[in-house]
Amino acid sequence: MTIGHQTWVIPEGMIPGQSLNDDPSFLSHETACILNANDRDTRVTITLYFSDRDPAGPYHITVPARRTLHLRFNDLDDPAPVPRDTDYASVIRSDLPVVVQHTRLDSRHPNVALLSTMAFPAAGA
Amino acid sequence: MTIGHQTWVIPEGMIPGQSLNDDPSFLSHETACILNANDRDTRVTITLYFSDRDPAGPYHITVPARRTLHLRFNDLDDPAPVPRDTDYASVIRSDLPVVVQHTRLDSRHPNVALLSTMAFPAAGA
Amino acid sequence: MTIGHQTWVIPEGMIPGQSLNDDPSFLSHETACILNANDRDTRVTITLYFSDRDPAGPYHITVPARRTLHLRFNDLDDPAPVPRDTDYASVIRSDLPVVVQHTRLDSRHPNVALLSTMAFPAAGA
Amino acid sequence: MTIGHQTWVIPEGMIPGQSLNDDPSFLSHETACILNANDRDTRVTITLYFSDRDPAGPYHITVPARRTLHLRFNDLDDPAPVPRDTDYASVIRSDLPVVVQHTRLDSRHPNVALLSTMAFPAAGA
Repeated sequence: MTIGHQTWVIPEGMIPGQSLNDDPSFLSHETACILNANDRDTRVTITLYFSDRDPAGPYHITVPARRTLHLRFNDLDDPAPVPRDTDYASVIRSDLPVVVQHTRLDSRHPNVALLSTMAFPAAGA
Repeated sequence: MTIGHQTWVIPEGMIPGQSLNDDPSFLSHETACILNANDRDTRVTITLYFSDRDPAGPYHITVPARRTLHLRFNDLDDPAPVPRDTDYASVIRSDLPVVVQHTRLDSRHPNVALLSTMAFPAAGA
Repeated sequence: MTIGHQTWVIPEGMIPGQSLNDDPSFLSHETACILNANDRDTRVTITLYFSDRDPAGPYHITVPARRTLHLRFNDLDDPAPVPRDTDYASVIRSDLPVVVQHTRLDSRHPNVALLSTMAFPAAGA
Repeated sequence: MTIGHQTWVIPEGMIPGQSLNDDPSFLSHETACILNANDRDTRVTITLYFSDRDPAGPYHITVPARRTLHLRFNDLDDPAPVPRDTDYASVIRSDLPVVVQHTRLDSRHPNVALLSTMAFPAAGA
């Protein structure tokens, strides 16, 4: 079964540098939720764009066959960690078709706020 | 009147295991809002994908003609309940075209946070 | 200039019956934000679908040329008000192409939560 | 690499006139996050639509090659600032293809609420 696209874009990115507390569940984070419904593993490459410097990456990850990966941008560290409190955008490319959804949990202020949207599937890119 | 697609994908899924209180309205939950605008009932099948185990399902539900069903993933229990505090993704298939929107209410922290996005319509899948 | 589609779907609808206070800005509400970028007024028809009863409507509104209307479902009352604390879905049809975005402000709990997503454009419907 | 569309629409717009405090991070704001993944700068033009007056603009900005711009509508001031507590919608045009995501941070009430959705890509407009 083949579902999705090979290139996805998330223009909005910003990992808040502060969090409510040390509970990992409530750590401020940005997530790319990736579904690989294929029967084979897929290799995914992420490039980050900034407002005032050259793009960073590529970051390489693998999403196994028939699995979902909820990737926290906070956890990316090769070739470099994602700077906090910094605007960025991301382009996600996959060898096989996948579907990507973007979520942020912001717990800077002593409450919790959520946002989510489907990433933008770039046709033919 | 035929509106929508037969296959929809929600890559982001996680039912928080804790809630503000016992009020069902404020129970942390994930919802797939499905509109069947057709003049006939449609049979819907849901498959859940995880990060570290094989997919679960299929779950079977029926959405009556000219009705909407706001399905809480919390309520799925056959063949098995959806594990809490666990990342998952869902693929929703319908015999007739429908439209699907995804919403989460998170009331773990003593406030309420909401997210919502249209599910991704998989063309030709 | 012609931008948009003539049919839009919002599967998720529920107007919370309670609010933080009497300030209209913080009244719990559901909104369909409609942009009519055309040089002519457009007539819009809304049909509401429920989980357990026949559809309601049509509701008729006009969006003037080169104007946006942020329509609160709370304000619909002809042929009947929208019931509170009740799941619904909406199909929005326009004589001319428009773009529709859905937003909910939920102020039941003593905080404020927001959700928003673009409505689903039904091709050829 | 060419990714995106040249015309995007955000029907929902409203900059809350009040904020939690004077911290710029928590100032109530509306943002259009624009990714220009092209190897050349692109010129972007924004037109604002209101409910009760003629459209405003055009506003002109440039997004450099291989950069993202998270543009706060709060900061637009030429030809005129964006009125607060006022419903508006925006049409964003770019010489080169871009991707646009919409986010609002609302900190009027003493908590923080977020919403986000991909803007609507207008085909052929």
